[in-house]
Amino acid sequence: MASEDRVLARGAKYIDFQTEPSRYRHWKLAVDGDTATLTMDVDEDGGLFEGYQLKLNSYDLGVDIELADAVQRLRFEHPQVKVVVVRSGKNRVFCAGANIRMLAGATHAHKVNFCKFTNETRNGLEDSAENSGQRYIAVINGTAAGGGYELALATDHIILADDGAAAVALPEVPLLAVLPGTGGLTRVVDKRKVRRDHADFFCTIEEGIKGKRAVAWRLVDEIAPNSKLEGKIDERTKEFAAGSKRNGNGKGIALSPLNRTIDENSVRYDFVSVDIDRAARMATISIKAPEAAAPADIDGMIAQGASFWPLQVARELDDTILHLRINELEVALLVFKSHGDGANVLSYDAFLDANKAHWLVNEVRQFFKRVLKRIDVTSRTLVTLVEPGSCFVGTLAELVFASDRSYMLIGSRQGDNRPPPSLQLSAMNFGPYPMSHGLTRLQSRFQADPSDVDRAEATIGTTLDAEEAEELGLITFALDDIDWDDEIRVFFEERASFSPDSLTGMEANLRFVGPETMESKIFARLTAWQNWIFQRPNAVGEDGALRRYGSGQKPKYDMTRV
Amino acid sequence: MASEDRVLARGAKYIDFQTEPSRYRHWKLAVDGDTATLTMDVDEDGGLFEGYQLKLNSYDLGVDIELADAVQRLRFEHPQVKVVVVRSGKNRVFCAGANIRMLAGATHAHKVNFCKFTNETRNGLEDSAENSGQRYIAVINGTAAGGGYELALATDHIILADDGAAAVALPEVPLLAVLPGTGGLTRVVDKRKVRRDHADFFCTIEEGIKGKRAVAWRLVDEIAPNSKLEGKIDERTKEFAAGSKRNGNGKGIALSPLNRTIDENSVRYDFVSVDIDRAARMATISIKAPEAAAPADIDGMIAQGASFWPLQVARELDDTILHLRINELEVALLVFKSHGDGANVLSYDAFLDANKAHWLVNEVRQFFKRVLKRIDVTSRTLVTLVEPGSCFVGTLAELVFASDRSYMLIGSRQGDNRPPPSLQLSAMNFGPYPMSHGLTRLQSRFQADPSDVDRAEATIGTTLDAEEAEELGLITFALDDIDWDDEIRVFFEERASFSPDSLTGMEANLRFVGPETMESKIFARLTAWQNWIFQRPNAVGEDGALRRYGSGQKPKYDMTRV
Repeated sequence: MASEDRVLARGAKYIDFQTEPSRYRHWKLAVDGDTATLTMDVDEDGGLFEGYQLKLNSYDLGVDIELADAVQRLRFEHPQVKVVVVRSGKNRVFCAGANIRMLAGATHAHKVNFCKFTNETRNGLEDSAENSGQRYIAVINGTAAGGGYELALATDHIILADDGAAAVALPEVPLLAVLPGTGGLTRVVDKRKVRRDHADFFCTIEEGIKGKRAVAWRLVDEIAPNSKLEGKIDERTKEFAAGSKRNGNGKGIALSPLNRTIDENSVRYDFVSVDIDRAARMATISIKAPEAAAPADIDGMIAQGASFWPLQVARELDDTILHLRINELEVALLVFKSHGDGANVLSYDAFLDANKAHWLVNEVRQFFKRVLKRIDVTSRTLVTLVEPGSCFVGTLAELVFASDRSYMLIGSRQGDNRPPPSLQLSAMNFGPYPMSHGLTRLQSRFQADPSDVDRAEATIGTTLDAEEAEELGLITFALDDIDWDDEIRVFFEERASFSPDSLTGMEANLRFVGPETMESKIFARLTAWQNWIFQRPNAVGEDGALRRYGSGQKPKYDMTRV
Repeated sequence: MASEDRVLARGAKYIDFQTEPSRYRHWKLAVDGDTATLTMDVDEDGGLFEGYQLKLNSYDLGVDIELADAVQRLRFEHPQVKVVVVRSGKNRVFCAGANIRMLAGATHAHKVNFCKFTNETRNGLEDSAENSGQRYIAVINGTAAGGGYELALATDHIILADDGAAAVALPEVPLLAVLPGTGGLTRVVDKRKVRRDHADFFCTIEEGIKGKRAVAWRLVDEIAPNSKLEGKIDERTKEFAAGSKRNGNGKGIALSPLNRTIDENSVRYDFVSVDIDRAARMATISIKAPEAAAPADIDGMIAQGASFWPLQVARELDDTILHLRINELEVALLVFKSHGDGANVLSYDAFLDANKAHWLVNEVRQFFKRVLKRIDVTSRTLVTLVEPGSCFVGTLAELVFASDRSYMLIGSRQGDNRPPPSLQLSAMNFGPYPMSHGLTRLQSRFQADPSDVDRAEATIGTTLDAEEAEELGLITFALDDIDWDDEIRVFFEERASFSPDSLTGMEANLRFVGPETMESKIFARLTAWQNWIFQRPNAVGEDGALRRYGSGQKPKYDMTRV
């Protein structure tokens, strides 16, 4: 049963990443002063696809889309919230992890995209804590198995009920022949620093670990008997709130619904538009500069609300990438273009730089960082075309540096009276948008000679034409009008003809130059192995563990060690 | 055509990793003063299996076994050699990389093991340069494609003939739908620091890059017209020799053939023995301590030659691991045991510590380090049993720390008059044997609290019983005689029943806690993605690129991006 064959529930035509609390089926978001409570209470009949029930607080992509939305809204709409308590609305179960029937029936592509998104959501929880002072506490009142425990692992503090039953577990290996792939293996040893042999034991038992051993082995932070659980939560919440660096004040910004139209071959938002050329297996993503300069001050930004350009364009771009990833599987190339007045983009960049201490400006910067990270781990070829009329300056220039290749026109085109294209850098290219492995895109780009980063930084404020940009190493190729069409066409055609798998593997290697962090290890070591396992008959074959789970039949394994 | 179905050439019963220069079919090793020349001149008809020819200096595992042997002998047998020139014995071709027909017909397990070994060999070249002052220069006289260029990438300096034809290329993605997986992608961006967009271009063209652009893009270090090529090699060789820290003097140690007997269910060497229990899918590897204390001085060591215990046991253990990896694919567990007088092991450790400045002592230490690294990346469950009569002290204790789990008996066994087992640490546990990600095994183990490493170090010279070892965190479980048999049996049975794939993925994640290095990235990011691709129909299916290569038919791809 492939995901394409599967029918989306409730007549949906595509998977939609946009939602809002009033439409949540699986989560309840309650805010009380400086504390929010996110309660997971999955609607069994609310699966994204038909054909499975989400029992025992198990989840599918639809459940995680709501969680990601809630985490995002907490940052923008609730400046006063310093602590978020994640708990279960069910008795005696926290969360049973990803739904097995959903996984067993999903295509390989859906499995991979599902895991990528859930990983991004969990990284987002940690990003909230680290960069916005919204710290997460998980309260485990029963079984937290697999993805359930992985969700808890992404929080800052895990409290486990000490009732002789509540336990944390990663039973994927013994039960399902797959990995705890939503960061579980990595966070156990790299974040919680569980000793590797303890981790080996823990990850190979079905029943999990509870009570004092869970604390001694660092799997949870503390345990509390049920009679004292609420008191303990209250105590920790107050403590975490007191230690939070969250400096939000005033009202938040309501993340109003995006203005979006999805047609057969296009998606339109206010500032982003997507055109899909199916024959060429290409999606062109055009980004429009703001119509005017940035507001004069913070009050002006707050008055703009969700239409503050960097916030709106980030939301539109984020939705674009997610939509293309999951709903347009045959698109091989994402081609970034831009148009409009670069001076206005730079004006917003200057605003984001000058006001970075303000909580809301910080949120916008952090969000753009996350959108760019999402692009970095998107398994499509990324290309930027810098043409007349474009505005790849400052923040938007990050798309040039995120791309696998970039092409820039030398001079103008015959019959086109727009000026030749130019690039311009801003402070936003030199720090605020690190990649998941900790380097900025320019630091990554210039590993051979870090002084090239300084050379680039010295050009801030200067307009760079194609030859200058090429000389500085900021673009891949500068081409003149005579060569442009042919070169680009041949490149697109060739690229679209290659095996998508080898491109995915190649891009995942070449994009992440240099160091690795816990976050990048999750997308590298852990995800790559999981994807391998997701191809292996021992997991996904007719007799494999995922297929046979719950059938009463034991899986049959090919016992060859590879 | 699976590797099991394939017939080993020349009537061989198993793949043998032992060879010596007089038996080489594919390489010539010539030593002249401080310079050695390794000439690759592959015998087309000398493939390891029947069914393919090794044209154009393409290689299979058999070719690489000779290379690994040569690199190893250069370190031990040729103390005076400071520079090794790697070149081709063919006209107009350096090396065409891994043989495609071999790959197309190999089992998944053989592909993976082949890549693992070739990666280890290339890491070995770099280890020679870094730690023994034997620096490698690659002379590319023609096409260096795929694995051919990857071999060059593992050297310190690449000279490319500038004749309008010689080129370096990584054509795997466009031609074969797989990755340059022998470190190629990683070394291009992480070692040679080729800009990622240049790397993207380079890795997606079939024809490669030659001449000035190859230098400008950092793909090679220099070019020379054929008329000046020999002069250039000579110049660089002298320069590298002058800068080498190699301080070998006197005669080397001849690596005489191992004394080895391979039977149906056992392998016997002088100090290592292997017993395979096929029903239990388990191989027990027993290591014997030296019969006497270490020699008094360097002269004594040189007199012992290849029978110097740490060298001999390292060679035997290395051969054991390689043999089990490739010839015993259904063995799930490697169980390490030891026996003999630990005081003698510690005496050798003290010798290795006191004399580390001597070139040969350094070689022995570096070799043990590499053997342990090979164990770390072996995709079998590793277990150490610390029982009465064992000698897991100092260097041998690294096997305890390399294991996924270790069990140690508390006290003695009924009816066994040997004293209770003990552990003892030495200086060798605190630096000389780092893992591929740069940490010692104890640093890896004690990420949660680095002062635990200091606590362990403070015990050097102290005998630790099971409870003390457990308290210090040096073993996983201390068990008494009553529980031992049942606990171990259940663990072995359970482990052998799990999906081998999920164990491979789990172990690859849990063993490498914390940072990554270029070397560990090759085994993590690159290899994991390659293994995924090696499962994908676009590469290995009937219509995939590996199968169709050379058939005149274009591969057919499923264009879904995953």
